[in-house]
Order: sequence, then structure tokens, then C-alpha cells
Amino acid sequence: MSSNRGVVYLGQSQVEVQAIPFPKLVNPLGQSAEHGVILKVLSTNICGSDQHMVRGRTTALAGLVLGHEITGEVLEVGRDVETLKKGDLVSVPFNVACGRCRTCKEQHTGVCLSVNPSRAGGAYGYVDMGGWIGGQAEYVMVPYADFNLLKFPDRDRAMEKIRDLTCLSDILPTGYHGAVTAGVGPGSTVYVAGAGPVGLAAAASARLLGAAVVIVGDVNPARLVHARKVGFETVDLSLDVSLADQIAAILGTPEVDSAIDAVGFEARGHGHAGSQGEAPATVLNSLMEITRAAGKIGIPGLYVTDDPGGVDKAAKSGALSLRFGLGWAKSHSFHTGQTPVMKYNRALMQAILWDRIHIADIVGVQVISLDEAPSGYAEFDAGVPKKFVIDPHRQLAKAA
Amino acid sequence: MSSNRGVVYLGQSQVEVQAIPFPKLVNPLGQSAEHGVILKVLSTNICGSDQHMVRGRTTALAGLVLGHEITGEVLEVGRDVETLKKGDLVSVPFNVACGRCRTCKEQHTGVCLSVNPSRAGGAYGYVDMGGWIGGQAEYVMVPYADFNLLKFPDRDRAMEKIRDLTCLSDILPTGYHGAVTAGVGPGSTVYVAGAGPVGLAAAASARLLGAAVVIVGDVNPARLVHARKVGFETVDLSLDVSLADQIAAILGTPEVDSAIDAVGFEARGHGHAGSQGEAPATVLNSLMEITRAAGKIGIPGLYVTDDPGGVDKAAKSGALSLRFGLGWAKSHSFHTGQTPVMKYNRALMQAILWDRIHIADIVGVQVISLDEAPSGYAEFDAGVPKKFVIDPHRQLAKAA
Amino acid sequence: MSSNRGVVYLGQSQVEVQAIPFPKLVNPLGQSAEHGVILKVLSTNICGSDQHMVRGRTTALAGLVLGHEITGEVLEVGRDVETLKKGDLVSVPFNVACGRCRTCKEQHTGVCLSVNPSRAGGAYGYVDMGGWIGGQAEYVMVPYADFNLLKFPDRDRAMEKIRDLTCLSDILPTGYHGAVTAGVGPGSTVYVAGAGPVGLAAAASARLLGAAVVIVGDVNPARLVHARKVGFETVDLSLDVSLADQIAAILGTPEVDSAIDAVGFEARGHGHAGSQGEAPATVLNSLMEITRAAGKIGIPGLYVTDDPGGVDKAAKSGALSLRFGLGWAKSHSFHTGQTPVMKYNRALMQAILWDRIHIADIVGVQVISLDEAPSGYAEFDAGVPKKFVIDPHRQLAKAA
Amino acid sequence: MSSNRGVVYLGQSQVEVQAIPFPKLVNPLGQSAEHGVILKVLSTNICGSDQHMVRGRTTALAGLVLGHEITGEVLEVGRDVETLKKGDLVSVPFNVACGRCRTCKEQHTGVCLSVNPSRAGGAYGYVDMGGWIGGQAEYVMVPYADFNLLKFPDRDRAMEKIRDLTCLSDILPTGYHGAVTAGVGPGSTVYVAGAGPVGLAAAASARLLGAAVVIVGDVNPARLVHARKVGFETVDLSLDVSLADQIAAILGTPEVDSAIDAVGFEARGHGHAGSQGEAPATVLNSLMEITRAAGKIGIPGLYVTDDPGGVDKAAKSGALSLRFGLGWAKSHSFHTGQTPVMKYNRALMQAILWDRIHIADIVGVQVISLDEAPSGYAEFDAGVPKKFVIDPHRQLAKAA
Repeated sequence: MSSNRGVVYLGQSQVEVQAIPFPKLVNPLGQSAEHGVILKVLSTNICGSDQHMVRGRTTALAGLVLGHEITGEVLEVGRDVETLKKGDLVSVPFNVACGRCRTCKEQHTGVCLSVNPSRAGGAYGYVDMGGWIGGQAEYVMVPYADFNLLKFPDRDRAMEKIRDLTCLSDILPTGYHGAVTAGVGPGSTVYVAGAGPVGLAAAASARLLGAAVVIVGDVNPARLVHARKVGFETVDLSLDVSLADQIAAILGTPEVDSAIDAVGFEARGHGHAGSQGEAPATVLNSLMEITRAAGKIGIPGLYVTDDPGGVDKAAKSGALSLRFGLGWAKSHSFHTGQTPVMKYNRALMQAILWDRIHIADIVGVQVISLDEAPSGYAEFDAGVPKKFVIDPHRQLAKAA
Repeated sequence: MSSNRGVVYLGQSQVEVQAIPFPKLVNPLGQSAEHGVILKVLSTNICGSDQHMVRGRTTALAGLVLGHEITGEVLEVGRDVETLKKGDLVSVPFNVACGRCRTCKEQHTGVCLSVNPSRAGGAYGYVDMGGWIGGQAEYVMVPYADFNLLKFPDRDRAMEKIRDLTCLSDILPTGYHGAVTAGVGPGSTVYVAGAGPVGLAAAASARLLGAAVVIVGDVNPARLVHARKVGFETVDLSLDVSLADQIAAILGTPEVDSAIDAVGFEARGHGHAGSQGEAPATVLNSLMEITRAAGKIGIPGLYVTDDPGGVDKAAKSGALSLRFGLGWAKSHSFHTGQTPVMKYNRALMQAILWDRIHIADIVGVQVISLDEAPSGYAEFDAGVPKKFVIDPHRQLAKAA
Repeated sequence: MSSNRGVVYLGQSQVEVQAIPFPKLVNPLGQSAEHGVILKVLSTNICGSDQHMVRGRTTALAGLVLGHEITGEVLEVGRDVETLKKGDLVSVPFNVACGRCRTCKEQHTGVCLSVNPSRAGGAYGYVDMGGWIGGQAEYVMVPYADFNLLKFPDRDRAMEKIRDLTCLSDILPTGYHGAVTAGVGPGSTVYVAGAGPVGLAAAASARLLGAAVVIVGDVNPARLVHARKVGFETVDLSLDVSLADQIAAILGTPEVDSAIDAVGFEARGHGHAGSQGEAPATVLNSLMEITRAAGKIGIPGLYVTDDPGGVDKAAKSGALSLRFGLGWAKSHSFHTGQTPVMKYNRALMQAILWDRIHIADIVGVQVISLDEAPSGYAEFDAGVPKKFVIDPHRQLAKAA
Repeated sequence: MSSNRGVVYLGQSQVEVQAIPFPKLVNPLGQSAEHGVILKVLSTNICGSDQHMVRGRTTALAGLVLGHEITGEVLEVGRDVETLKKGDLVSVPFNVACGRCRTCKEQHTGVCLSVNPSRAGGAYGYVDMGGWIGGQAEYVMVPYADFNLLKFPDRDRAMEKIRDLTCLSDILPTGYHGAVTAGVGPGSTVYVAGAGPVGLAAAASARLLGAAVVIVGDVNPARLVHARKVGFETVDLSLDVSLADQIAAILGTPEVDSAIDAVGFEARGHGHAGSQGEAPATVLNSLMEITRAAGKIGIPGLYVTDDPGGVDKAAKSGALSLRFGLGWAKSHSFHTGQTPVMKYNRALMQAILWDRIHIADIVGVQVISLDEAPSGYAEFDAGVPKKFVIDPHRQLAKAA
């Protein structure tokens, strides 16, 4: 049991499964972490934000063990752990959070003040997020385990729904956070920019929150086909028909109550402009256009402080040319940042366990082995309408 | 067109359809009301709170024209009306509200300060609510029409859904208000006391809000059968098994996240005690028992300030013996009052029009003619699992 | 009484007091407005946003009667007005709002959907805001008077506090809205960009809301002297010391809990950069730097959709180069738009009447005659730490 | 250093300072608690809720070490403590909370699910609250120290304000919670029932929150004199003038926006009725009468589940005869429970450190030695307008 293998970033477009050290109860500074547990990883998903690193759009260094979407079984508990024991099945929020600082106490676990010496907020296997080792591996260490982990109440029931529950570590709460901060509620009309997994999770969340109608937009035809198949309205942003006009064709009015940016900084232009490459402010500017006066814009899509691959000098430092005057004229508010997963994951787990949301089908979960991870990265980068879930010990395969 | 007929309260257990005056644009004080409209009533529902009057449990006087759940077609508009025109189909919130006082401006239209000289809050056809003439009639006047009325965006689409849309005037927003004030959201476990129309509307609202599981309790077996048929879990309060134990059998824990009192002051005891007659504090006391610590209790069920038929002197003045110490120990909050319909009806209309909620089937809408109103009152009082909708001009019958 | 005089915009840097028509109960489309009242103007203030027009930074046309900060006495009431009578003293929210549309009903009166054919939101005497005639005049018409007007409860008590109460029409609620949307509460540390009247009103509001410490920044030394005199900490943005360092010198930490942009699109660079002219994104970018993780940024300062005087093509269309990636990394939210005055003015009136806030002294109210308005505009544009209040009938002068 | 002394409850009206064991890092079940710290107690206050026990109004057993309002200096840290070190000055929330359960994560630390086997919620030195040893002593153990403790940022500045900061452990947050849950904000008119320390803290909190006017009511003349001296309006409940009339004499209207019950279950009748002994529903019933429609009622005053000294059988089991029908007619909401101190104490500490609230003077802090504790209990029980602060090591005396 003291061996371990994980997905390692080696440089632009290169990831490889390698032998890595078996985790210990120590933090990235080498200090003892008796508040932690070692997990046997049950499932661990490839995320769109992993792709930013793999595409070379961040300052990540070679050698990083990837993976921040983790579900696991408790294998070993530190001395200070009280509520967990060997054998428990748990969901790991992608945020590393201490549970003891001001922001954690105020439920803003996405910007914990103590797990990352260089800025607020920590995560597993991610550049600039505190150096916590990633979980696309057989085993991983989770600190502050009593605080961070969400225990599934019943093992058998959990294994039946494991393809859905694996989405609790990041993607479902992230889409949900987008919907909540966009003010979605019963009867809302909602537009979601981006039909990738986060966009679909936002759309599914909007539906769970009671939205009347949810429209998803993308330039990728396969993703649009999938979005329609799982029940959403769609708009095709590769067309030279304006977004407002396409929305009006569905709703009878060119504006929605709530809008969600599930794309982030690697946005492309719409229509014709799309072929001319990235246009990082496209999504936000279009959302100001189609969101009603007094509406809110939820922005789970990632915007970065430094982008080595940015289209121009401004983009390289995370600056965007936003039509802020338009948003101001419409009294918009804009809600950003890493999702505080813990604020939502217990409620969403209940929604899954009681059959209120079928997130695995909606995002297109496809279970793969650890060794298939590199090809999963490549396929996902090519834009297939799938969410790849790594099954390092083939436990999902057996459960199915 | 200058004739009119309506349902008139004549004394305990007596209602009759009589000729009544055709409405004018004047308020109950006889002052001109150019802000009002005359409606041709399209549908108007019999409500559980009408029954309180008809059972003689209020100080209502004979001669009152009943009816506060009204949907109609605009027939005539006052001079100050700007946004409505003849032929518009509209839903009328049961609250009469001026749109100009402090509470109306703060969205508390259930306690408008200017439409009722004797207390805060007005309604059509209801004792102590300002003297506004009821709408279980062919025609009715609605004051402050621009403010009060919700216009259906499309006439044909509205007529297709009219059995659902008729629930927007009271029962659906009222159930929804109970759910919202009880803190229901995605993943919540919810208990609703009472399987009558308001209870079912609360349950349906909880589901729309994303609740994981909704449990409805009653002593009436027909209503429990109906509640199960439309998809809710149920508990049978006529059994001598505690509510907590029945909930635990469903959830695995004896407490819920959110609880809703859709019964009000005419509550009966549970189990054996039920045969001993009314016990007005039963519901609230049981909700404190089964609501989790830090939970909220929504109370759309009516409690009155004066009850001529109260079981004892305290009940006659609206006083209840509440186990408040228990609620305090669990940090509960309690949310009361007439629902401010306008806060919710637009969103709920959208949910209906986009097929997110099928409230007519859930509450058991049965359409009847105006002349059938008295037998509708009698049947409803007997506890059938139906919601009677009066169709004074047989327009629903034709549309079906 | 049928004569009238008002302040008229004639072109860049030119305003003049001219004879203008006596107001009628009609709206800008020439339709009857019996819901309105004619006011004898008691006081009417010059606002920083008037300056945007007078400086030629908008598309305002010559001939516009200026003035959206109005306090008055009811002179004549339309037939449909119910709650007001001749002689009442009232504060007029600068937003024109109908009280009958969706956004008004939801308390977003800053973006009323029906008083301006070209976009959401109306105001008196302002370009693109619906054509309502301004109130820097002897008399003015206010539509939807029952809804819009705030009546002072006692005439004598009102006249004693009239220099404070005149701030209720715009500046105090606007500063307050900035503070509220920035999340200010008891114990907050707050930074306000801009020591003009709105900035000082935001600072005073933060104090009323219980803020522990309020820091105001500007480049104008006279305004900084005044800000210190009325009790706020200050930072001098003309220095070549970073804002973060200046904040750290006061608080011991370079970040605040809440930040407010009371400058808007005509911002200048800080320090050395200030001498190089406008830099419209300076304020917002600096606020992302100095606001703590999970903090909120309130933006009462005006950003426009079209700025003929913008420094470059982007600025001319209201686009700014924002370091959005930084805000995202810190989970900031951004709150924009015209203040919905009615949401706040009653509470702030109470705070004034009960001596909890002395806003006139804080913003430096100086009462002038109508004929002095043009010189008031010029002085204010030069940056004096004053708020000019026009007293068209010399009633404030007599009251003092 | 291994000796210790504390205030011990011996039976009705009997408390004594006795030698007690020096604290260990173990919980009440005898399990190791390396997450805890040992504090040298700097100050520890006598609370009104201690009096409930000492008066024999609870089921507390002889031998209980009292004291849940604790401020201290860290003496010894458990192995798992990360953020604290010897010498730190800290405020201890009276709630014992684990920081790891659902309610703690949702900021409801008053009803922690894991520190008390018999019900939700723990406290030091209090009956039914989990068996945690009280802190009216020289030394005390605090578990989950990283989560529970609020560290003062600067030792010297803290010692200057220590008489105020000692109020952060309970009384100030408790009064503040009452005000917040009652909906107090800028411009509010507020009524506080009870001029004891919690009532005065609620009144001071209302003022900090921007209330326009705060009225405090009591039957105790000395407390009313003190309340006026520290700046509040008062009403004398021993008079045979109704509360509503007394409020109207101050405000011009018989209702307030927000009401706070700082009395709880040992309430006496008002006016004449007061001489007839306890009337536990008096306060709540009077608050429904004088709170405006749509107002909120905050209830920090303690109501219990079992009261051996209750006036009748209902009172003995915590049941009250509430005029709930009246509250319902006015759309009131009622907010109960132990204050989650941690939600507020950091902000209130900032308000104290920046001189925005002088809570010690407002509640009448009087510092006494540990040996004077029994006479402090007796004096406080007699109704003096003082808040007794025990200074076990005479460090406050030296600091003064």
C-alpha cells in the first residue's frame, strides 16, 4: 500500500502517469498535519481548469501532480481527526481550507487565509494554490479533514450514485455557485455562456433552483447537441446572428433575468469573429447586453492574474476591455471567484441522493482508468461533450 | 352587462348565489377609484379561509359577498390606469394593496397601510379586511389596478394553462411563501403540516425550490392518498405513532430542515387526541419538535385575533399555549402573516407557463359553475381532496 | 404664479438662468399626468453628475433644464393623487419611477421600465433619462407623486433640518447605496475613493452603518482637508506612495473590508500618473488591489455608455481596461448602477430627524440663490469642498 | 500554577469560591482534547443567565463551577493548536463549538451538534450545556481553540479597552444578535424590553447599527435612571400607562419598527399586574402589540424547556400563552435562540478598538475580585444597574 501513482504535468500538452510518493500527514511546508487523513482515491475528475495549465496558459511548473476533484475512502486518520474513521466514503471540496481563519468561518472557504502563503485560497494540484499535492492518483492527503470532508451517509447508496456524487468536489457546486450568484430562482429565465461541463452544471443547477427556462450557448456543435439532448435550450454562437436575437427567438424578449459566464478568460469571439482567435472580454460584454436591468451576472468561469499565452499585453496581466458603462447603466452586479464548495455540497448531495438531479448524465460522465488519463486530457481538450472521471482502483467499474 | 351575481354568506354553513350590484369604480368608503378596473371574472376559487367564515369561526356578518381568489378579463379601465386595456387577462392577488404606502413599497403588500381603516392589510370578500367586495361573482372591481394586477403575456397560452394560472391569486403564492420563509432550498428535507390545497401548494413549491424530499402530514385519509398520488411522502397523523417516528422512518432521522404550518388555528390533536376535538397549538408545537436546530418554521396557516368558536377563553382571543422554550432551545425562527402575493406571482406564472409546476393537478382543481358554488363549499368542508374553481361565464368549460 | 425660471444648459461650460414654462401635469410625451403634482421648489442641489453634462462629457443638447436633486412644497395636485395635499413638504428621489412596472415593484426604482422610452431608468433634467424637465427652477412637475414623493412628517421640524434633508433626493442615498452594496456594517474598515460630496456621503453613511474606520482618498488637497475636518481618515492620491501603503499606515494592513468608488469614469491616475490626465480604470483597479478577499466593491460613481470626451476609442464607448483577473482571484463582487433612492430615503430621513447624521456639515452645504447657480457650477467644477444648494424662493435663507 | 479556584453553585441562592482542579486538556467525557488551550482567566463576568441557575430556576446540580463569559491569556496550547501561542490575549465565545459539524459550518455555533450529547449547543459552566467546566475561576480549558477563540490583535491596546472587550464573550454579541434579528438598521425606531445588561447591550447595538431612536423599558427605577444616563429613551413598565401610550408619547406613534425581548421567561406583569408576580408571556405579547406590521421581533432573552419554579404547569414545561393570532395578523416574525457569538465578535471587537461603542460604561461594568463574586451575585440579583466583572488575578485592577 505504500506505492502510489499519479497524473503529472510535464510541460505544454504533456501529462503522464508516473510513480509518485505515497502521501504523508504533512503540509506543503513539511509540517506535521495530524488534522489530515490519507484517502484511497475512489474517483477523480479531469477539470477544464486543469486544461488551462496543460495548455501552458499558466505559470505551472513541470512535475506538478494534477487533480483537485477528488472522492475517496478514508484509509488513515491523523490524531486530531474526530469525526471520520477508516472506510468512510467522502467528497473532497477542491478548495483546501483551514476552518479556523476569518474567511473560512464566514463560509468563504474559496479564499482561506492560511493554506497558501502567496495569496488567499488553496487547492489540490494547482499552480499558485499553495502547493497541495493533486489527487489524480491512487492516494492523496487531505488536511483539516473534519472540516473539509463531506461524508456520504450510506456506503451502498453512495456507490449506486457515485458517478453523480463525484461531481460534488467541484463542478456541480461551481455551476451552482454561478447560478446562485446570478440570482436564479423559481421562474427565472437564464442564459449560460459555455456548454462544457461547468456550463452544463450551471444549467442543471438553474433547473434545480426552479428556473423557468435555461438557455446554453457555445460555438462547439457537439456540445450544443449534447446540451439539447439533456433538456436545455441552446444558442449557436458560431452563427452570425446576434446572441440577443437568438435569445429573443426563444423567449420573445432579448434579455434574460440571470446570466452565467462558464467560459472564463480563454473566450473566443462570437460569429465571424470567432475564427479570429481569443477575445477574452467577449463573454462578459455579451452578458451585459443580454441581462435585464437590475440583473446579476455570476462568473464561475476562471479569470487569471497572469496569462503567459494572453493575446496581448493587457490579457497577459489579466486585464480585459469591459463595456462597464453598459453594465452600470443597467444596474448590473458581477460575482466572481473560486466557489466555496462547502457552502453547497451537503445540499447538493441530498439532491443527488433523493434523485432530484442527474448530473452525471447531464455533464456526460465517462469513467476511465488512471492509465487512460492522458488520452482523457487530449479528448477533453478537443471539445468532446464529456466529463472524464478517473477510477484509479477500478472500483467504479466494479460497482457499475 | 349591468347585471351581476355572486356568492353571498348568509350565516353559519349558509351560502347562496344571489343577484348583487354590478361593480363601480368606487372604494368601500364610496370614494371614486379611477385607479381601478372592472373585471369580467374568468375563474374564482373557493379557499380554506372562506370556510373559516362559513363555519362561523369569524365575526363575518351576513350579506358579505365572498371570494378573494380571482382571475379575470379587463372589461373597463379607470382614468388613472395606464398599463392595462380592455381584453387583457389578469391574475388578481388576494391582497388589496395601494402601492403607495411604506409597506407596499417594501414589498409587504399583505399589510398595506391604506386599504383598510381598521388594521394593516386588505382583501376581497373577507371579514375585517377593509370591506372590498368579493369576486365569487360574474364581475368585480379591482382597485390600484396597475399596481395590483399581473397581466398574462399571451392570451392563448394563458387559456391553455388557466386551471394552473387560477392558483396564482392566492394558494400557490401562499404555499410558496410558507416554503420560502421556512428556508426551503435545493436539498432540503421538508415537512408540511396539512394536505389541503395550501399544504399541497406548499409541498409543490418546496419541490420547485429544489427540496430533496417533501413529507405531508394530515389526519384525512383521502387527502393523504391524493398527496401520495401527486408524488409526496406522507405521514398519517391519525395514528398513534409519533410524528417524529414517522419522519424517521422516511428520512432515517426524526428531524427535517424546514417545516411549514398549512393548517392554522382550527388544528386538531394528533393520534388519539384528535378525536377530542380542536387543539389549536398542536401543529406549532409538533413543528418545534421535528424541526432541526437553527431551522425555520413558515406559517401560512391562518391564526386569528378573535375566534368566536374557540375551544376556550384563550383560543377565543387568538392565544395559544406554545412550547416556546423548546423552539428557543433549538434557535428556531417563526414566520407568520398573509402572503404578499405580488412578491412571488410573476415568477410562479413563469414556472407555470414553462411547464415547471403542474399545480392544478397537485391541488386537485375541479371546475364548477357559479350555481354549483354552494355545493362546492359543502364538499370542500367535508374534506375532499379537491380545489373548487368557479367558472362564472363557463369560459374554462369552453376552453377545455 | 404662472411664471417660472430655471437653470438651462447651453453648451460646454455654459449654464444660464432663464425664463422657462411653468410646469403642467403632462409627461414628456405630452400625455396627461393626473398622477403628478406641481411643486414649488424649496431647495435643489447642484450634483457632480450635472457637471458631466456641463463639461460636455455627455450627449446632452443645449436647452436642457438641469436639476434632479429636488425638495419642494406641494402646490397643486393631480386628480388621481391620494396621499398628498397642498402645503406638504416633500423630498423627490432623483429617479423618476412609475411604481407599476416589475423593477419598481422589486424596489429597483433606478431602472424603472416605463418612464424612459430609450432605456431603463428615468431622472429629472438629465440626458438620456426620459426627457423629464429639471428642477433647478422655481417650480417643477413630479409624476406618480403618491409613489415617488417622501413626505416630511412635520413641517417645522423639517425646516429646522432642511439643509440636511435636501441631501435626501440623491447624494445621501447614493453614498449610502455605495456603502450598503460594499457590504459595510458594524466594525468594517472602509475605503472611499473620492472626497467630493458623494464620497463624503458614502463615508458618512459608512459611519452611520457602524463602520470602525473610514478612509477617504482624493488628489484634491482642499477636499482632503475638509474630509479630515469632518472626522474621516484620508489618503492623498497625488503622492507617489501607493494606496495600499497609505492604508497600511492607518490600519496596520494594506486591505480594507469594503471599498466604494465615488469617482466614476472621469477618474485621473494616482501619483505621478495623475498629471498625465484621465485614466478611467484607475479607481476600479486600485479598489481590487486594496479590498480583502471575499470583499465587495460598491460603485455609485457614474460610468457611461457613451463619452464624447473619452481619452481613447474604448473610453468613448464606455469600455475600461479592468484587471478583472485580480478581482476574480480575490472573489470580489462589483455592484453598479443608479441608486434606487426610495429604498433608503425614509430610513435616512429618520436618521436626520433624530440627529444621527449631520450630512449638511459633512458635505459642506452652501446655500445660494437661483441667480448664483452659474457661479455655483463654476466653483464646484473647480473642486471646492462644498455642496451647492439652490434656494429659489429664499425660503432656506429665511428659515436660517 | 497547578492550583485553581472557582465560583461554585451549591444550591438555591448559594455560591462560593472554592478550590477546584486545575484544568486539563480533556473534554467532559474524559477524552483527550489536544485541540484545546488552558487559559489564565483575565476577566470573567456574572451573567443574568447564571442567575436563573442560582435562583433555582433550572435543574442545575450543586457542585457546578459557574461562568461562561471569559476573557483570558493563553497559558498552554494543545499539540493540535496552530494559530495561538502562549501569551496571546483572547476572547472566548460563551458557546462551546466544534467548528466541524453542519451547524458550526453554517455559522450557527450556538447549536453545535457535537459538544453536548443531550441536545444541540454547548456552553461553559451551564446546566444542560454539555458539562464544560465554567470559567469564573483562575484557569479554564477551552476546546477547539483555533476555531473558538478570538485573538486581540495588540496586547497593549487590548488592555486599555479590557473593560469593554470583556463584554465580547456574551453580552454584547447577545444584545447585538437581538438587534440584528429584529431587523434594526439605520433610521429604525427600536423598543428593548429589559434594562439589564443584555437590554442595554441590545440598545447600544441598535445605536451602533444606526437606529434613529432606542427606547428601553423596565420596572426597575434604578435601571431606568441608568439607561437614561447612557443616552436611551425609557418607558416605565411599573406605571399603569400602557406601553403603547408611552411609546406614542416619545415617537408620535404607538408602534416601533423593531422590538427586542431582553427579559425572557422570568418576566413580570406590567403596571399593577407586576405586583402579582411572574407572567412569562407578558413581554412577547406586549411586543406583538407595539411592533409595526411586517416588523421582526428579536428574542435574545432566555426561554427554557423546563422550569422547576414556573408559575403553573404550562410554565414548568416552558409553554407560554402567546397571542399568536395578533402577531400573525401583523405578519411578524420571531427569532430565538442562543447567540452564535462568533458570527459577530470580530466586528464588535473592531467597533470597540476604534472607539465606536463604549459598552462598559453603557452596561455599568464594575470590576471585582474573585472573592467578591458571591456578593456580586447577590447585588446583581437585587437589580443594581451594574455588570460585575471578576478579575481573578487582579490584572484589570493593575491595568486601570
